[in-house]
Amino acid sequence: MQISERVKLCQQSPMRKFYPYSVEAVRQGKKIYHLNIGQPDIPTPPAFFDAVSAYASDVLSYAPSPGAPELLDAVRDYYAKLNVPLDSSDILITTGGSEALMMVMLSILNPGDEVIIPEPFYPNYAAFIHAAGGVIRPMDTNPAVGYWYADRARFEALINERTKALLITNPGNPTGVILSEDEMAMIKDVAKEHDLYLISDEVYREFYYAGEGLRTMLEFEDAADHVLVVDSASKRFSACGARVGALISRNKELLGQCLKFCQGRLAVASLDQAGAVALYGLEPAYFDQNRAEYKLRRDTVVGKLREIPGVICEEPKGAFYLMATLPVDDADKFQKWLLTDFQDKGETVMFAPGEGFYATPGKGKNEIRIAYVLKQEDLARAIDLLALGIREYNRENA
Amino acid sequence: MQISERVKLCQQSPMRKFYPYSVEAVRQGKKIYHLNIGQPDIPTPPAFFDAVSAYASDVLSYAPSPGAPELLDAVRDYYAKLNVPLDSSDILITTGGSEALMMVMLSILNPGDEVIIPEPFYPNYAAFIHAAGGVIRPMDTNPAVGYWYADRARFEALINERTKALLITNPGNPTGVILSEDEMAMIKDVAKEHDLYLISDEVYREFYYAGEGLRTMLEFEDAADHVLVVDSASKRFSACGARVGALISRNKELLGQCLKFCQGRLAVASLDQAGAVALYGLEPAYFDQNRAEYKLRRDTVVGKLREIPGVICEEPKGAFYLMATLPVDDADKFQKWLLTDFQDKGETVMFAPGEGFYATPGKGKNEIRIAYVLKQEDLARAIDLLALGIREYNRENA
Repeated sequence: MQISERVKLCQQSPMRKFYPYSVEAVRQGKKIYHLNIGQPDIPTPPAFFDAVSAYASDVLSYAPSPGAPELLDAVRDYYAKLNVPLDSSDILITTGGSEALMMVMLSILNPGDEVIIPEPFYPNYAAFIHAAGGVIRPMDTNPAVGYWYADRARFEALINERTKALLITNPGNPTGVILSEDEMAMIKDVAKEHDLYLISDEVYREFYYAGEGLRTMLEFEDAADHVLVVDSASKRFSACGARVGALISRNKELLGQCLKFCQGRLAVASLDQAGAVALYGLEPAYFDQNRAEYKLRRDTVVGKLREIPGVICEEPKGAFYLMATLPVDDADKFQKWLLTDFQDKGETVMFAPGEGFYATPGKGKNEIRIAYVLKQEDLARAIDLLALGIREYNRENA
Repeated sequence: MQISERVKLCQQSPMRKFYPYSVEAVRQGKKIYHLNIGQPDIPTPPAFFDAVSAYASDVLSYAPSPGAPELLDAVRDYYAKLNVPLDSSDILITTGGSEALMMVMLSILNPGDEVIIPEPFYPNYAAFIHAAGGVIRPMDTNPAVGYWYADRARFEALINERTKALLITNPGNPTGVILSEDEMAMIKDVAKEHDLYLISDEVYREFYYAGEGLRTMLEFEDAADHVLVVDSASKRFSACGARVGALISRNKELLGQCLKFCQGRLAVASLDQAGAVALYGLEPAYFDQNRAEYKLRRDTVVGKLREIPGVICEEPKGAFYLMATLPVDDADKFQKWLLTDFQDKGETVMFAPGEGFYATPGKGKNEIRIAYVLKQEDLARAIDLLALGIREYNRENA
């Protein structure tokens, strides 16, 4: 009995592969500061739990495959507030943004088809693309200029007859890069001119730390058939444990194809959808407050990282992640060592080693992704632990 | 822009493809008796909702990718009561049984690899197999002998060098067929001798209407590496809207590969998992009571179906489905007509047309699947509506 070639290509998640070591470290009594996973400590809005409690049936039944009608309407109304008029039929509710991505890849890629992604990128994209037998064509970026990627020539140099889609994350995970309006329009034009799908992962849309609010690729009416937006309640509303996302597109043909996979898995969790109706109905002021908190957190982390000798870190503009280059030989080895061999007053720290965010072999080896999702004092302590760890690790390995 | 070849192969779900027509019929004021979807009307155990309410955090956070530890233990303990000793690490919690099947297919099939399935079978298997580029090799059965399929020669006649797995559903959906212990052992031996995976979908395990309780393929220690069991809370506990299932196997290598996909989609819904801990902890008496109720329902439906001239229907032994052959030209056309053109006292009925349960083209055209998941009086009325519908439809189409 064999396993499939595609699953051999899938890697363990860099955010989650050290989970067994962390379990062991906790068992030994260590406290871990988790900068490895985008799991905010901001309370989930109570409206979520209230809506779940109000679920009005003694039978917890299947929701319709495309999504609960109330949630489809709530997502539509959220976009209406962003001046993006949608019809509820432009939306499919998915089990997190993850499932939206999986369904898209299965619906557009034949084995050997290519997707262009600026790297570093969210590593789970690889799992979805490999699942469909697709190939990632990574676009090179440079840490020293904050991983900027909006360069027409670089996109076009990667396009060939197997290219099916461009995939961007805006704001970026893991880089925090935010596209300007002109840059969005340029990328949209590339997709249109080369007849490609443009998959825009906008789950971090509400997390930007300057300016007036982000645009969405859905605004480009002239590319309505090209644009597929991935959305999620998890991060936006600090409700990661609710697996509710959405695939949004005006391309009815493609959405109809994805619906077959929705029907195949029957439905998204009914209680989570009931709760998400309340979340998507929150007033924009909810985001202002979180934005202010995350800006402080970003500033804390960036400020303290820059005090560590040898660390390179450009200020991220959005999301709640950043990439940092560390003065260590191998971030993977360093992370394992932090869990097994290091502690300061019984505490240690986890991040996500950078290599897993690159498709190009050998890249990212001394980079890490940090999710600044903890309280400022916890973040400060976590970066102190990182600094201590770097010093001790390099002494031991000198 | 093109869509993928695999998604073209996927069909609309026969259980859900008439959903738009049903929405329209309801809008016109019709009441519909739903025999099309396995959505029981039995109340979800209150313990589920209590456990959800007791979720003890103000942050709804991600569960671990393999599943919440408490739920892994609860599933293990459920199997211990069936005298199947498992380790929690033999289990991955999945978003319904559906996701377990999807992950298995992605992890074992290369494009062109084959899976043998007795037909008629649960149509969504096709979506998961096509997603992986696999090919269904259907095994013929006969309605007149109740779709029996446990024939070694027929299995072996279908095995070739591309065969990777046997897939069985026990008890059967849509047929209600239950395997005897000897039959289970024979199928296990075939898998073992030909070095195949044996995927055993046992989500209906507690629904059997004679004898002393069903065995599970997990009991065959001599085929531990071959057997993959798909499990789900949805049907067993009348909690379909909770998307919680499990993939269970002692094949650590394969489970480790599937874990990559678990990490890719991050986690299963936290609240649903909290609720499912309570469900898997219910005493076996819970099943006895449901079993008695479903037996009465089965007897009602079978009795009334056999009164309709021209209907063929063998008594199903388990699950809560049956296949019936109707005296109509085309069950698909007939279902659409029932929603758009038929009513009796403002009421009509939905079933799942049979063609979608077959991989062999042209088969099942005059068959339907009935889910006997309603109260007896509702089932009786639904079958009366079916009888009336058949008469009127055939008069109009004479």
